[in-house]
Amino acid sequence: MEVLGHAEAAQKCPLIILAVQRDHYSPFLRELEDVLDGKVLVDVSNNLKINQYPESNAEYLAQLLPRAKVIKAFNTVSAWSLQSGTLDASSQVFVCSDDNTAKQRVMDIVRAIGLTPQDKGSLLAAKEIENYPLQLFPMWRLPIYLCAGLTVLVFLYCVINDVVHSAVVLGKDISFRLAISIPNKVFPIVSLMLLALIYLPGVFAAIIQLYRGTKYSRFPNWLDRWMLCRKQLGLVALSYAFLHAIYTLVIPIRYYVRHRIATNTIAQVKNNETSPFSTVMAWRSDSYIALGILGFFFYVLLGITSLPSVSNAVNWREFRFVQSKLGYLTLVLCTGHAFVFGWNRFLNVANFKWYMPPAYTLSLVIPCIVLILKFILIIPCIDKRITKIRQGWERSSTAQEDKKFKNGHVTI
Amino acid sequence: MEVLGHAEAAQKCPLIILAVQRDHYSPFLRELEDVLDGKVLVDVSNNLKINQYPESNAEYLAQLLPRAKVIKAFNTVSAWSLQSGTLDASSQVFVCSDDNTAKQRVMDIVRAIGLTPQDKGSLLAAKEIENYPLQLFPMWRLPIYLCAGLTVLVFLYCVINDVVHSAVVLGKDISFRLAISIPNKVFPIVSLMLLALIYLPGVFAAIIQLYRGTKYSRFPNWLDRWMLCRKQLGLVALSYAFLHAIYTLVIPIRYYVRHRIATNTIAQVKNNETSPFSTVMAWRSDSYIALGILGFFFYVLLGITSLPSVSNAVNWREFRFVQSKLGYLTLVLCTGHAFVFGWNRFLNVANFKWYMPPAYTLSLVIPCIVLILKFILIIPCIDKRITKIRQGWERSSTAQEDKKFKNGHVTI
Amino acid sequence: MEVLGHAEAAQKCPLIILAVQRDHYSPFLRELEDVLDGKVLVDVSNNLKINQYPESNAEYLAQLLPRAKVIKAFNTVSAWSLQSGTLDASSQVFVCSDDNTAKQRVMDIVRAIGLTPQDKGSLLAAKEIENYPLQLFPMWRLPIYLCAGLTVLVFLYCVINDVVHSAVVLGKDISFRLAISIPNKVFPIVSLMLLALIYLPGVFAAIIQLYRGTKYSRFPNWLDRWMLCRKQLGLVALSYAFLHAIYTLVIPIRYYVRHRIATNTIAQVKNNETSPFSTVMAWRSDSYIALGILGFFFYVLLGITSLPSVSNAVNWREFRFVQSKLGYLTLVLCTGHAFVFGWNRFLNVANFKWYMPPAYTLSLVIPCIVLILKFILIIPCIDKRITKIRQGWERSSTAQEDKKFKNGHVTI
Repeated sequence: MEVLGHAEAAQKCPLIILAVQRDHYSPFLRELEDVLDGKVLVDVSNNLKINQYPESNAEYLAQLLPRAKVIKAFNTVSAWSLQSGTLDASSQVFVCSDDNTAKQRVMDIVRAIGLTPQDKGSLLAAKEIENYPLQLFPMWRLPIYLCAGLTVLVFLYCVINDVVHSAVVLGKDISFRLAISIPNKVFPIVSLMLLALIYLPGVFAAIIQLYRGTKYSRFPNWLDRWMLCRKQLGLVALSYAFLHAIYTLVIPIRYYVRHRIATNTIAQVKNNETSPFSTVMAWRSDSYIALGILGFFFYVLLGITSLPSVSNAVNWREFRFVQSKLGYLTLVLCTGHAFVFGWNRFLNVANFKWYMPPAYTLSLVIPCIVLILKFILIIPCIDKRITKIRQGWERSSTAQEDKKFKNGHVTI
Repeated sequence: MEVLGHAEAAQKCPLIILAVQRDHYSPFLRELEDVLDGKVLVDVSNNLKINQYPESNAEYLAQLLPRAKVIKAFNTVSAWSLQSGTLDASSQVFVCSDDNTAKQRVMDIVRAIGLTPQDKGSLLAAKEIENYPLQLFPMWRLPIYLCAGLTVLVFLYCVINDVVHSAVVLGKDISFRLAISIPNKVFPIVSLMLLALIYLPGVFAAIIQLYRGTKYSRFPNWLDRWMLCRKQLGLVALSYAFLHAIYTLVIPIRYYVRHRIATNTIAQVKNNETSPFSTVMAWRSDSYIALGILGFFFYVLLGITSLPSVSNAVNWREFRFVQSKLGYLTLVLCTGHAFVFGWNRFLNVANFKWYMPPAYTLSLVIPCIVLILKFILIIPCIDKRITKIRQGWERSSTAQEDKKFKNGHVTI
Repeated sequence: MEVLGHAEAAQKCPLIILAVQRDHYSPFLRELEDVLDGKVLVDVSNNLKINQYPESNAEYLAQLLPRAKVIKAFNTVSAWSLQSGTLDASSQVFVCSDDNTAKQRVMDIVRAIGLTPQDKGSLLAAKEIENYPLQLFPMWRLPIYLCAGLTVLVFLYCVINDVVHSAVVLGKDISFRLAISIPNKVFPIVSLMLLALIYLPGVFAAIIQLYRGTKYSRFPNWLDRWMLCRKQLGLVALSYAFLHAIYTLVIPIRYYVRHRIATNTIAQVKNNETSPFSTVMAWRSDSYIALGILGFFFYVLLGITSLPSVSNAVNWREFRFVQSKLGYLTLVLCTGHAFVFGWNRFLNVANFKWYMPPAYTLSLVIPCIVLILKFILIIPCIDKRITKIRQGWERSSTAQEDKKFKNGHVTI
């Protein structure tokens, strides 16, 4: 290993990895401008904030040293991957540059150290590559806030309806329900709401297209943002459904449930009566459970197809088939599950505590709206119109002709 | 934005994205032949049916305009991906062309709009790329039909054996069993049958190779097709096993089961007798459950390794180890689960309803055949012969020499 | 098909796939040296052992025939993939060569037969590519041995503590517990131990860095190896947690449990007493179950993010957030689950069988050490020092200056 001055070191090497902060580019590198002429200069810098500067560090470097071949690379890789070269985390290295030969050379170096280069095109991509390592689940923010908000609201509703009501009215302490019983109401309710919220924007979009009579005008911004986070919304909903499934399966193990069943049996013996077997009860209990299981099964299937490697292996038609057809099937099954579970309880206003309807009725509002609207939209005459609009037809025929011409051959 | 005539527009741009239907290629483009000389022409067209024309649209275009550089791209991408550039569905764009420079250019455009180009080689691949977006799970058709057929048959068998028999002979309505009890017989039975059907073709293949004394002749077509859908067969079998697991775990929550247990306990109290604890029953109950759990665990493991990203991360030896060794272990565990569950019931002809053996005995037929055949095939002397055949040895030694020569250096 | 002599065949083709064993390279190929001049020579050979020869077969071939363009390819692909071209197993073909044009050509051939080429760079990668198909889960060996060892030890401890003690002291045969009760102690205990062992090396690393006052010296070898198998350790721990979950959910179906509950209820009736409902017991039972479910949920989340396609889709910051923050949350939840489950039992020495503490107390040792050490490390003043060290600060300031200079611009 030799220790050299900057200029000397730069002169000796055809390829230089620049690990200098952007603030020091200007005075430091301008001195070396002549030495760096024609050299391959790899910018590995990262900023502290997203979009900190108007242009990316790599583009700024390319402006400073127009005769050097600037490559953006390695900034997305952890020190850990660079050292061990393993597949512990991602081994992808994003590379971009305006000089293809230099880019190929850097990509070969990436391969040589056991990582996988990912060609991101020209230096225009540098901004995105520099922002990438600073992101923390940007697409998940909205779904998680929404989910957290709904969870808190429904949780409070259930606590008031159940624990507080019991403590105030009956003077009975059932606070232990906070651990399992209440969460096992909150999770399915929020999960069903979120599932319906995934399909609501699609229904809105269809209504907007019907109303406007064209598909060639952009949707309002809020609808676009909503549609873009449907996948994340779905995964949050699935995780709540998963929690609901385990919380439910765990019921017979609980001390509270075992105690209640034993007390019940003992009471029957003492009163010398056996509660008769009701076929209706058996049908109701079994069918809401069966609907729940089947709904959960398709829920999981939807989750699996949204894994990146699986969705990469199916084409657009297959993806839409799964996400749309199976998605609606899931929504129907889960809504049915909630309906049969409720049976006639949500009609019986006399049983309402403090005039509050039971919590699960809340969960049915959005799914019912979505299913009714969807049902209207698939009535043949309306469905035909939407299909026509989506194939490019427009209500005002002159505008249509114009568009057709422009779409006939788009040039880049 | 300028609005230009076709020829003018084409003249101005070095790269043209052609969004015209194949039927209009011939008269429309021939006029522009001279203008398009040397231009990069991106064919984004799709057909309405698989293999609609003898040659792909892109190849047809290349024949029409031999001096243009034809690229096939973007036809597999949804409008949604093009607009939002997200990873909601797949962001892969298949690209193929006979001109490498033009292909690289189109791939750079793909990268610039945030999608990932996938180089599919020369224009020969265009046919496959054009067929791709029209497919709807082609590999899943056979497994799903098979599974659906078996499901219907076993379901009818169980309904007759259980519900109908009870209604006719005992005059008792147990129709509520249609929701959970019967499905929870059908799912495990069909799942075990399908699991065995995955390993049957491998056994057949070994027998055929043994009989023929060579590995160098093709298997019959039906066997090839069968072998190619083993992965899908396995995933369908896994999903049935998953349903069986949840349906089983849900048992103690059912009204019917709770009622039966309470009635049983009350009867014991009234008759003043306690059923004595049977260690044999405890062993039997616990061991069939344990076998089932372990079988399900390896089932899930097999499913996880068949995820594309996981199977891409293991080599052939590891993949075979998991799919073959762990696969047979799963089959043995699940068959054992069914055997211990049945215990001595399937010997007891007196208990058969309408001379029909209990449904789960049906599920044991194919697994037993597979396991017995496999057991014979791994007897050392037979196993050695198969291994030799698979390493290239052939029974007739002259043919073998010939082959060796030809295989010595295959030329393309 | 023509059958030709070796020299003739080679002369006719620009690209030759060489399927000859390495032992026969030297005499056989030297004769053809002139004929092979400038030809593309694809080496598809595999060895029988890892690192069998000092240099890879492809590099050896390139030395023998310096004028041929040697490509390493196809050796990692199974005959099955080559024949059927399906995505059953991996369809990746690793390709490397010192000649870029020849490599591109072979990669086009790979694409033409429906497989996906993976450019691995120069011929230096040939050694790795030749070792690849011989590996059998090398990263999994240590975690699986460790897990197997712990499983056997804990299993024996539980058998002695439970079954043997009962047989010897009470003369009661409870051997049926070997099927479910004992495994359902072993799985969670080992799973929690392994989970803690994932976070222990990170704690050690921080202590070592604190002690040394620098991040620029390598960790001891055992620590490096330990850190490299954390992912596999985590997946083994997850699979044990999964088994524990199902074994637990299955409890109410067991004959033994049903019999015990019925006996208990009947005894209450006979003695004409009802065990009173204890809110403390309800809280305890519900909260340890709830902690377990939430712990398992985050466990599964960690497992999903370690799928290759998912970890490729998140950046380093996101990956660390999930694996570190959610990982510690999981550890805290699972340790809490075990503590609340134990309640006051592990303090009560009088109840110890043969002076052995109950098995689950064993599982708490390592997690408590990890959590206490981690708790100390995140005390602000210590945490600040570690952060400084990880940002490059060193205790001895002269060494630091030196380093800074050297790290200022690393050249390759």
